[in-house]
Amino acid sequence: MQTSAGQDRLSVDDTARSPIEAGDPATDSRLFRRCLGLYGTGIAIITTETKGQRAAVTVNSFASVSLDPPLVLWSISHGSRSYPLFKNGGRFAVNILASTQMNVSRHFSSKIEDKFAETAWSAGEHGSPLLDGCLAHFECETYSQVEGGDHTILVGLVRRASRFEGEPLLFAQGQYCVAYSHPEVSPSPEVGGLKPETSSEGTIIPQIFEAHHLLSSTFDEHRHAEGLDISVARVIACVYDMPGLKTDQVARATYLGQRDTEDALATLVERGMLVNAVDGQLILTEAGRQRREAIRKRWQDFQKDQLAGIPEGDLRATLRTLSKLITQNRAAK
Amino acid sequence: MQTSAGQDRLSVDDTARSPIEAGDPATDSRLFRRCLGLYGTGIAIITTETKGQRAAVTVNSFASVSLDPPLVLWSISHGSRSYPLFKNGGRFAVNILASTQMNVSRHFSSKIEDKFAETAWSAGEHGSPLLDGCLAHFECETYSQVEGGDHTILVGLVRRASRFEGEPLLFAQGQYCVAYSHPEVSPSPEVGGLKPETSSEGTIIPQIFEAHHLLSSTFDEHRHAEGLDISVARVIACVYDMPGLKTDQVARATYLGQRDTEDALATLVERGMLVNAVDGQLILTEAGRQRREAIRKRWQDFQKDQLAGIPEGDLRATLRTLSKLITQNRAAK
Repeated sequence: MQTSAGQDRLSVDDTARSPIEAGDPATDSRLFRRCLGLYGTGIAIITTETKGQRAAVTVNSFASVSLDPPLVLWSISHGSRSYPLFKNGGRFAVNILASTQMNVSRHFSSKIEDKFAETAWSAGEHGSPLLDGCLAHFECETYSQVEGGDHTILVGLVRRASRFEGEPLLFAQGQYCVAYSHPEVSPSPEVGGLKPETSSEGTIIPQIFEAHHLLSSTFDEHRHAEGLDISVARVIACVYDMPGLKTDQVARATYLGQRDTEDALATLVERGMLVNAVDGQLILTEAGRQRREAIRKRWQDFQKDQLAGIPEGDLRATLRTLSKLITQNRAAK
Repeated sequence: MQTSAGQDRLSVDDTARSPIEAGDPATDSRLFRRCLGLYGTGIAIITTETKGQRAAVTVNSFASVSLDPPLVLWSISHGSRSYPLFKNGGRFAVNILASTQMNVSRHFSSKIEDKFAETAWSAGEHGSPLLDGCLAHFECETYSQVEGGDHTILVGLVRRASRFEGEPLLFAQGQYCVAYSHPEVSPSPEVGGLKPETSSEGTIIPQIFEAHHLLSSTFDEHRHAEGLDISVARVIACVYDMPGLKTDQVARATYLGQRDTEDALATLVERGMLVNAVDGQLILTEAGRQRREAIRKRWQDFQKDQLAGIPEGDLRATLRTLSKLITQNRAAK
């Protein structure tokens, strides 16, 4: 099956591509993390309370295990301040975050001392704190604890499950995401309707959806061609716009996690695009600035190329239509 | 913190909503599955080979465990035909699917006897089959096996990790999805660029992205108001358009898993919208047909409402712009 690596890398039929990178994760944990980041996940905040002491950790290692009995699992780092409370507490709740809760995820990933003080929550029926606004809660008794290297796998017996309206918050390729139906499943949001309508009223909105998907996918190919993964690209843009920030400030500004930010910064230093100035202030080198400007130019050229040949009057009319749709749907939120 | 449940259910500030449903998953496994489905995941195909015998299972229970040593896990049902091979084989590979591999996911979830026969793959360095076209491969030795109710949790020591270009395939709320940057992180795909451009060339594409996000979210609220989750909505549309299909045909046509399809069908039967005719052929009742027509009308009304007040000339110009963008990006694939 092994054939020589093709050059048209993003084609579906290209079945024997070369890896971007490969190796032994025991000797390269950053490689391992980059590979793990390709598996998209939701975001869960795990909470517990014992004798008035509360703890919460943000994880994307949640997984279902069993229906009968109902079991779920997640993993906690031995380095976590909250590890003793989860290890000895005997119970926890899994709070699945909604797409409206990016701020909650950031709050609970921060180093703030009492994370519950500024958060709306209530005590669950089984003793663990339940965060308001989540998509789902699983109230658990600890069923087993399993050694897993530098983490412990906590398996929970779910005593109560509840679900709420909303859309899931996702984390994929190092960034917060929202999910849309796969375009091959549902080219229009008409739930299940496979036959496209033919009046202009009946095609404009599905076409907005399809145009977004196709443009986004084409631009991703451009970004790949630039040799940048999205977290590196976001960090370089941030340091360009705001030179002198420190690592934790960059992590907050880019909505990347601390570890992804550190990895991206290390990559940029290795490539000679970034220097760590006095007091940990981050500054792009001339090579870094040039790279940032190349990315910006690529995006501008992309837009120009895409819109080339469309009459100016059509572009203005399209902008009026889109602006009206955006304004009226923003107002409804 | 407990306040009376608000009615404006989708507001971010509405911090004490009532659950759609809640209960003990030990006595209601369908409730449990619906709650679990709210945690978005990637899709992984786990493969192994021992003495010429190959096995593969499709899972969304993959999770990272530890960096040092590098460990990952997933769970296999005791009812799986492949369970003995994974239990005794001592090794496996995790193949993380890309957004272009929805067909691969469906193929490996089917009951086809030799799933490898029609699939491009190669032998990994550590003895397990690696599927072509994936986003990442983790070649593992079995590190430990842990009892987990009706499943066994398999923890793997990763000996080799590799990653490829592409976007992840996701599964959320019972359906295949693709991920887009969260709109609060990146309103435009210009990686990290926080300052919007002001020329018309520089705003039209970001506005397509934002219009898609807002319209999609508004329409989801409409669907929720109809009291339908997306898998039920998709199944009812499928049986309306193609009466007489059987369960496995509906599962294939709707791109839902067998279990989600069965759950949705059971929900429709309970609500008196569906009957199971002779030979397992599925037929909507009059109530079911009316519900399907109400959904279709809601979608048509939604489009009319959204576009109301936009001059016909602008609508036609917008359609021309979108059609051109779609055509040229489709052609590039």
